[in-house]
Amino acid sequence: MGIRTGEQFLAKLNAMRPHLVIDGEVVSENLTEHPSFRGLARSFAALFDLQHDPEHRDALTYGSPTTGEPVNVSFLVPRTREDLERRRAGMTVWAQYSHGFLGRTGDYMNSALTALGSAKKFFTQADPAYGERVEAYYEMCREKDLLATHTLIPPQANRSVSGSEQLGGQLAARVVEERDDGVVVRGARMLATIAPIADELLVFPSTLLRGGPDDVPYSFAFAIQNDAPGLRYLCRTGLHHGGGHHDEPLASRFEEVDAVVVFDDVFVPSERVFMLGRPDLCNAWYAETGAGPLMAHQVVTRTLAKSEFFLGLASEIAAAIGIDGFQHIQEDLAELIRNVEIGRALIVAAEAQAALSDDGVMLPHWPTLNAARNWYPKASQRYPEIIRKFCASGLMALPGEADLDVARGDIEMYLQGKSLTGPERIRLFKLAADASVTGFAGRQALYEYFFFGDPVRMAGALVNSYDREPLRERIRELLHHED
Amino acid sequence: MGIRTGEQFLAKLNAMRPHLVIDGEVVSENLTEHPSFRGLARSFAALFDLQHDPEHRDALTYGSPTTGEPVNVSFLVPRTREDLERRRAGMTVWAQYSHGFLGRTGDYMNSALTALGSAKKFFTQADPAYGERVEAYYEMCREKDLLATHTLIPPQANRSVSGSEQLGGQLAARVVEERDDGVVVRGARMLATIAPIADELLVFPSTLLRGGPDDVPYSFAFAIQNDAPGLRYLCRTGLHHGGGHHDEPLASRFEEVDAVVVFDDVFVPSERVFMLGRPDLCNAWYAETGAGPLMAHQVVTRTLAKSEFFLGLASEIAAAIGIDGFQHIQEDLAELIRNVEIGRALIVAAEAQAALSDDGVMLPHWPTLNAARNWYPKASQRYPEIIRKFCASGLMALPGEADLDVARGDIEMYLQGKSLTGPERIRLFKLAADASVTGFAGRQALYEYFFFGDPVRMAGALVNSYDREPLRERIRELLHHED
Amino acid sequence: MGIRTGEQFLAKLNAMRPHLVIDGEVVSENLTEHPSFRGLARSFAALFDLQHDPEHRDALTYGSPTTGEPVNVSFLVPRTREDLERRRAGMTVWAQYSHGFLGRTGDYMNSALTALGSAKKFFTQADPAYGERVEAYYEMCREKDLLATHTLIPPQANRSVSGSEQLGGQLAARVVEERDDGVVVRGARMLATIAPIADELLVFPSTLLRGGPDDVPYSFAFAIQNDAPGLRYLCRTGLHHGGGHHDEPLASRFEEVDAVVVFDDVFVPSERVFMLGRPDLCNAWYAETGAGPLMAHQVVTRTLAKSEFFLGLASEIAAAIGIDGFQHIQEDLAELIRNVEIGRALIVAAEAQAALSDDGVMLPHWPTLNAARNWYPKASQRYPEIIRKFCASGLMALPGEADLDVARGDIEMYLQGKSLTGPERIRLFKLAADASVTGFAGRQALYEYFFFGDPVRMAGALVNSYDREPLRERIRELLHHED
Amino acid sequence: MGIRTGEQFLAKLNAMRPHLVIDGEVVSENLTEHPSFRGLARSFAALFDLQHDPEHRDALTYGSPTTGEPVNVSFLVPRTREDLERRRAGMTVWAQYSHGFLGRTGDYMNSALTALGSAKKFFTQADPAYGERVEAYYEMCREKDLLATHTLIPPQANRSVSGSEQLGGQLAARVVEERDDGVVVRGARMLATIAPIADELLVFPSTLLRGGPDDVPYSFAFAIQNDAPGLRYLCRTGLHHGGGHHDEPLASRFEEVDAVVVFDDVFVPSERVFMLGRPDLCNAWYAETGAGPLMAHQVVTRTLAKSEFFLGLASEIAAAIGIDGFQHIQEDLAELIRNVEIGRALIVAAEAQAALSDDGVMLPHWPTLNAARNWYPKASQRYPEIIRKFCASGLMALPGEADLDVARGDIEMYLQGKSLTGPERIRLFKLAADASVTGFAGRQALYEYFFFGDPVRMAGALVNSYDREPLRERIRELLHHED
Repeated sequence: MGIRTGEQFLAKLNAMRPHLVIDGEVVSENLTEHPSFRGLARSFAALFDLQHDPEHRDALTYGSPTTGEPVNVSFLVPRTREDLERRRAGMTVWAQYSHGFLGRTGDYMNSALTALGSAKKFFTQADPAYGERVEAYYEMCREKDLLATHTLIPPQANRSVSGSEQLGGQLAARVVEERDDGVVVRGARMLATIAPIADELLVFPSTLLRGGPDDVPYSFAFAIQNDAPGLRYLCRTGLHHGGGHHDEPLASRFEEVDAVVVFDDVFVPSERVFMLGRPDLCNAWYAETGAGPLMAHQVVTRTLAKSEFFLGLASEIAAAIGIDGFQHIQEDLAELIRNVEIGRALIVAAEAQAALSDDGVMLPHWPTLNAARNWYPKASQRYPEIIRKFCASGLMALPGEADLDVARGDIEMYLQGKSLTGPERIRLFKLAADASVTGFAGRQALYEYFFFGDPVRMAGALVNSYDREPLRERIRELLHHED
Repeated sequence: MGIRTGEQFLAKLNAMRPHLVIDGEVVSENLTEHPSFRGLARSFAALFDLQHDPEHRDALTYGSPTTGEPVNVSFLVPRTREDLERRRAGMTVWAQYSHGFLGRTGDYMNSALTALGSAKKFFTQADPAYGERVEAYYEMCREKDLLATHTLIPPQANRSVSGSEQLGGQLAARVVEERDDGVVVRGARMLATIAPIADELLVFPSTLLRGGPDDVPYSFAFAIQNDAPGLRYLCRTGLHHGGGHHDEPLASRFEEVDAVVVFDDVFVPSERVFMLGRPDLCNAWYAETGAGPLMAHQVVTRTLAKSEFFLGLASEIAAAIGIDGFQHIQEDLAELIRNVEIGRALIVAAEAQAALSDDGVMLPHWPTLNAARNWYPKASQRYPEIIRKFCASGLMALPGEADLDVARGDIEMYLQGKSLTGPERIRLFKLAADASVTGFAGRQALYEYFFFGDPVRMAGALVNSYDREPLRERIRELLHHED
Repeated sequence: MGIRTGEQFLAKLNAMRPHLVIDGEVVSENLTEHPSFRGLARSFAALFDLQHDPEHRDALTYGSPTTGEPVNVSFLVPRTREDLERRRAGMTVWAQYSHGFLGRTGDYMNSALTALGSAKKFFTQADPAYGERVEAYYEMCREKDLLATHTLIPPQANRSVSGSEQLGGQLAARVVEERDDGVVVRGARMLATIAPIADELLVFPSTLLRGGPDDVPYSFAFAIQNDAPGLRYLCRTGLHHGGGHHDEPLASRFEEVDAVVVFDDVFVPSERVFMLGRPDLCNAWYAETGAGPLMAHQVVTRTLAKSEFFLGLASEIAAAIGIDGFQHIQEDLAELIRNVEIGRALIVAAEAQAALSDDGVMLPHWPTLNAARNWYPKASQRYPEIIRKFCASGLMALPGEADLDVARGDIEMYLQGKSLTGPERIRLFKLAADASVTGFAGRQALYEYFFFGDPVRMAGALVNSYDREPLRERIRELLHHED
Repeated sequence: MGIRTGEQFLAKLNAMRPHLVIDGEVVSENLTEHPSFRGLARSFAALFDLQHDPEHRDALTYGSPTTGEPVNVSFLVPRTREDLERRRAGMTVWAQYSHGFLGRTGDYMNSALTALGSAKKFFTQADPAYGERVEAYYEMCREKDLLATHTLIPPQANRSVSGSEQLGGQLAARVVEERDDGVVVRGARMLATIAPIADELLVFPSTLLRGGPDDVPYSFAFAIQNDAPGLRYLCRTGLHHGGGHHDEPLASRFEEVDAVVVFDDVFVPSERVFMLGRPDLCNAWYAETGAGPLMAHQVVTRTLAKSEFFLGLASEIAAAIGIDGFQHIQEDLAELIRNVEIGRALIVAAEAQAALSDDGVMLPHWPTLNAARNWYPKASQRYPEIIRKFCASGLMALPGEADLDVARGDIEMYLQGKSLTGPERIRLFKLAADASVTGFAGRQALYEYFFFGDPVRMAGALVNSYDREPLRERIRELLHHED
């Protein structure tokens, strides 16, 4: 079967019957026409279509090892550095399509599955069957070109205790029954992005477990169809407010919808259970399977496209209103240039320093990617600030597309830019607003900041996993050097 | 007549016929019921009503010197430090009502008029008639309790040239004809906030004029009724998206609507013209009349209420999800506390160091207020960041009021906080979202940052107006001190 | 007796026999001529002399309530806001003398003693005798015009445990024997600044004690003569490198020398013991006696002088090399102006909001001063950065005073500034270096940052002591407001 | 001849007779024993010796194309990416020797000469003879293993005018006479680092020239022996204060001495003149010859070693006093890790994206290196701040080596760390002080910040040279995209 078209993706989506709660309704069908999901579904359909586009199909696909048919390149198991570059080339096409604003394109979870499907040695520590199941699942997703969302963290109710302690253990998703043919899961998880348009839901190990017996029920990894009985999504209120591409150029296309996942005694069949009852291996899930590096490789590719978007946008604005000669504007542009080049350097260097895993997978250099994923969440917070500084009151004096019908003359006269007509200028500034002022922009800032988890905890994890001993040794040598 | 009630304010508003362009319509009547203005009009009506509220009327009013009837305390000409404190007490009531989110409550422009109405010596430099006219206008506004918006800056088209050079001088509002009975004005200005609900529009001197003959037509100050013939407002697309107080607690109440003002040959009668053809006096308008200090006094009072709001909100969130014991959370709370205390200190110190003007008006200390208005725009940019950091994914997993009807059980169970029920917690987090993530929040950040103009230029103005010579002299003494 | 002259101060200093370890020597006599202490001693002598200077004596002194003779105004027990202003006026004279670089002028500890001497109700909780002793000690210091250093924190050996747990309790100073006539103290404390030139050492409660029985030996407050038997000071290596006022204008005058204090079974007579064995009261020492507010009042006065110094210096440099027209330079100058005005506002507001204590002492408003002491350590870190940015390579191409003898022509020609001769310019830049580049400058940055303790812990203390409930209540009201 | 030993270097240095002004003396001989230069000379001697060290000689040398004898690898003309890696391996050895604190090791200017010696096409635009001269000079330096300093910028007197306008053109170095056999140069330049120990001085094009006729005399590039007649150096007052490696571990080894260069009618023979009278080519000097990329490649290699030093040092300190478990400490360590990895990624990516120049030289990717050299000056300002935060009062309670003789017991007892004896701990903290508090540390911060020039101007240059058009085009496509 292999790569799908956009049309095939939409057709399957309409055939699904998930339980979605949004804006006071329960929605289960005709998802592609629902105003809250329509724009997002169309954007994802376009991503599927790009796989067939003559200009991009070579970058986006490779021949399936089982059928020879083209499948998405994010499923390619990298064996060489060139394979990593090839994966990146494909991921870049998708990243540039959404300018990095789609945080959960399929290649993200595909990258995880690609690593997991090859991580035999890891799974053998528990049971080789897990490794075989995940490989079979990976192959199914690859051949059917499925789109997966995932969910990672326990509910937030009380952060001063661990997830499994929330309300006596009654909040976080956990295994409440083990049966011969599978397990039953109850409780909640946050935060399934693109849940309404996904085929599958991956439920992978959550934040750090301490490994005592209390943590066993919270220790698991599995996959489930997105419309499984008992599975419910509570969607965040939407941030696309009904405007067209002129007035809401980003939200109308890329509003991803986040959701809380509720498992109301969801049955997961054994062949979709990839780990059970092993807090130790759950804690090692991302680091030891290669899933971490391949996922981070996708993320850094995506965020580079986003940095490039902001540099391009800031440059257009600066030219449009004649501020590009001001020194403080140049300092901000220089900051964006630095970030684009740092982002690119981190990817290139992660690939150049890649090494083979024990399972023979070529993994990009983890310390480099780990630094990258600690760097971007902070660096990117400045982007909307810069856009706001450039536009200033131009974002407040901003009529919309419909106003052209009743006030075109005034807009043409009084809202023109140095090098743009009034209508062109308000179009550009609407994009600036959607990237720096609107609710869509606000959620993006939040999303990037917490993409991999709380930056404070991530900093601790980075420090603890980074080998500083050789550098400490240099200091000790200097201290005891005679000359 | 004296202070109006909310009902009187709304009735007069409905009787007006301004030319408002918004969302593809021209709106001229029934303004109080228009969905884009309704919430704002009601909030302002509540402010008027507070003047009659037994709890607040003593703070908010004083006896008119002409009628003895209560008028708003922001019209009180301060002669003593106690008068300044009295003015502040009243302004604080209004500021706390909107938690600082209403940037253009009436006391802002009232403060300007109060200073101008007493600044006889300033106006005499041109013509004593100007001083008499502005005093008469001030008294009318005071007695009729009118609400004024204003507009300051030329269109932004090309910032590398001055306002009067934009497109050969054809963009910025200017006097195109001087008649015996008044002047005719053509061109545009930005940025009239609350324009749709105002009684009056004040058009005061714009950004710095160079004083050559080319600048003469751009040198003026006048007032005009908000529905004067030829006056048009192009309103910004609204940021209240129709939600109620639960889902959009701030936007549903405090979305102020910004507008571009177009003067299509607007006639201004002589008695409303307060300055004409004197670039030198236009440049000195705020500094030499006392309008700057009295306006800044109101602004700093308002922004203190906003800092307090964010400290209160951050504290509620921290308690709600049990993060108040984390060190990095405490550092952010400490930053908010510092800013509240710095803000308050700047007001108190400006009053304590107040001095009488040549016209016998007690003006708060300008260097203190000048520092304050350079400090807050930067300090406040951190507020939404802090709220986002505290809430984290809690802002992304956020259903709305209507979802309580269809998913109350899940919300109660899985969205509860440490000390709040699920429904209470989503209510609190909706407020957090409206203060840190939504378009309303984004526009607020922008608005505060540029409140007094581009911070870069403001820094230059602060440096140039501040007397550093005594401190420089101390350095020279140290350099040449023998011991 | 009352206020001393500089000569009297130096004579008494030479009569003392402390045990000072510095640069490989033990120094115990002729302290005023020792190269490490000479400059500091002379600067303090000048401070004493200022008390007799006709220009300053009225500000610096008041009539002793016992003798009527002039004593230092920092001993004045404030009963009114005017008293606070009077105290500040005197402290300002001294602060400006050293431009804030002397962190331990006598008024700092005098302020503590003034509060403690009046805090009868506090001491009565343990034993009224303590209150009487501290009052008698206060009066002695006032009448003899003594100079005290103090020491606060336990050794740093292992910060992951509390002070009293360091090395099984063997490191921190503690009471090892209670005798009828006094106590014996053993162990160490950091960090006695100006120890080599002080008359007295005050040993007040250290960082937070937990109040269990283990903490009892560490719970005390006492005073001791600086040359008491068994008392040893390990001085930090000096940061004045022997240059004159031209080359080291600050270090040659204001290098304060910090020291570790070792108590080698030091006997403290009962009349100098002000608290013993009460961890609870030791923890409340600064907050409940008024010592905290009066000390902070002095500190904020001093740091204002330092902010003013940096603004003056930056202004001189900008003019000297013609950079004052650059926008980014003006932004930095504006930051310094803001900080000067914020610093002044915090003092003025603390005084304007002062209130009487239970003991009838007029204490400046603590929340304001608490914010101030959390704000300055961070804000001031930028000062040397700004000076370095202004001077740039001018700080690296910087010959010294002696070079004028052998290269005056080149210096006159090639090191001149826009408005200064070469010799004048290098003099100014030497001052800039001593404020931003030298070891003296580095230690100053460190000192201010940690003046009141670790800023992270201070932030926690600020949050815990600040009443946020009224602001939280405003949020709850808004959430439940119908309109 | 090829690589020298340290002894040979010192011998030649003692044979030279430069005119050095320092601390009130003129020094011209026995340079290696002068207290101001001795430590630096010995460190450089050690660098020369490393070329002969069996452990490092393969990395540090390659076979001379003319003699086959080993010469320093920084002279290797890179033709492949492997050559770039080889150059880096050698430069890393030297960089790690000084932990990045020596900013002017020979490989810096060698890299410039290597590029210039191959940039035939560039020189042909003026006269092929220039290309031949510079190649011959490059070969001489390579074969004789000479050490060059250089000098770039005009005196700073008045920054509001350009260098050539200073004092009517009388300040900046310029050609005052063109003779048949060479040119005569008069005026000054800043800032020759390591001038006292260099063999040669390179005088390359200064900051941007405007290219009018007035700029012609300031348009040149040449080399001169360091003891040429008429050449004088005014050295900065030294920052090594005579302590040994214990007390001043960095300053005693790596204090580089900066100097103003005065040309008092210095004659430069024609064969050492590499460009004359061509402002256009002078402005293109670094960008078009490849000198910029090869120099920046060395700098980024060096600064990586410095970032690694600070990460190692911070880690040692954190362990020594038991602070490594604190969250805010981990955040700072994470920042250092990020910077190490970003620095490394920028080098690796610059090499991976290298391309051949028109002259067949493999140049590292300039946009990457240009970002790197804009990034490091800002990022590195945090390093000493972090060290100060970690050490806190431990840097103030810091006796020195000599104090061990008179107070060893107290130091052992009271200054021990969690995992270090007292003597070990003060040794470590002396290193921390020299990296974060001393004058040496202050000058290092300044030096890195301004290494490539004023960061504000560098930002402008980065923006102007960076091709943003493809990214702007993406924005325009998005704006006009129908879907």
